[in-house]
Amino acid sequence: MIRHVVMFSWDDEMTGELEQQFTEELTALASRLTGLRSYHAGPDAGIVEGNFDYAVVADFDDAESYLAYRDNAEHQDIIRRLSRPHVKSRAAVQYEI
Amino acid sequence: MIRHVVMFSWDDEMTGELEQQFTEELTALASRLTGLRSYHAGPDAGIVEGNFDYAVVADFDDAESYLAYRDNAEHQDIIRRLSRPHVKSRAAVQYEI
Repeated sequence: MIRHVVMFSWDDEMTGELEQQFTEELTALASRLTGLRSYHAGPDAGIVEGNFDYAVVADFDDAESYLAYRDNAEHQDIIRRLSRPHVKSRAAVQYEI
Repeated sequence: MIRHVVMFSWDDEMTGELEQQFTEELTALASRLTGLRSYHAGPDAGIVEGNFDYAVVADFDDAESYLAYRDNAEHQDIIRRLSRPHVKSRAAVQYEI
């Protein structure tokens, strides 16, 4: 199984409403994808200082399923509208679990 | 439940052997902790360019269990010996799942 992990830090223009819409649209998309075993997206809980602002962890059957999600047209549209305009930093890993 | 996510990029001195030892020691520690539901640590699979080098995703019952892991003396010793000397960048989020 391939786990995709990505984190973002946002610029000052990101709002809680936009962040919630991002979570809702990603989660709705995830529920319709094949090859996706588990999907959790959400904002940092504020437990410690110095963190990034947002994380997504998604478990796929294989690398092909991850790449289909990455390149999915609806996914790209969500990114274009909601996250990309506010991304200050991005960190990603895909790894075998 | 609180999910802790952390990624590292390494300096040029990090080796596959050190990375494997890091994974093994973290995983062995995790198996002995209370309040920890799931733990997966490992190197980036090389599917896409521009990623960080290593990720850990750990699911805890609550924030207290996460903080106990963070501050655990054996955990701190693993970090001191194996990861910290080679960390170029670090990104972390804890979020509710």
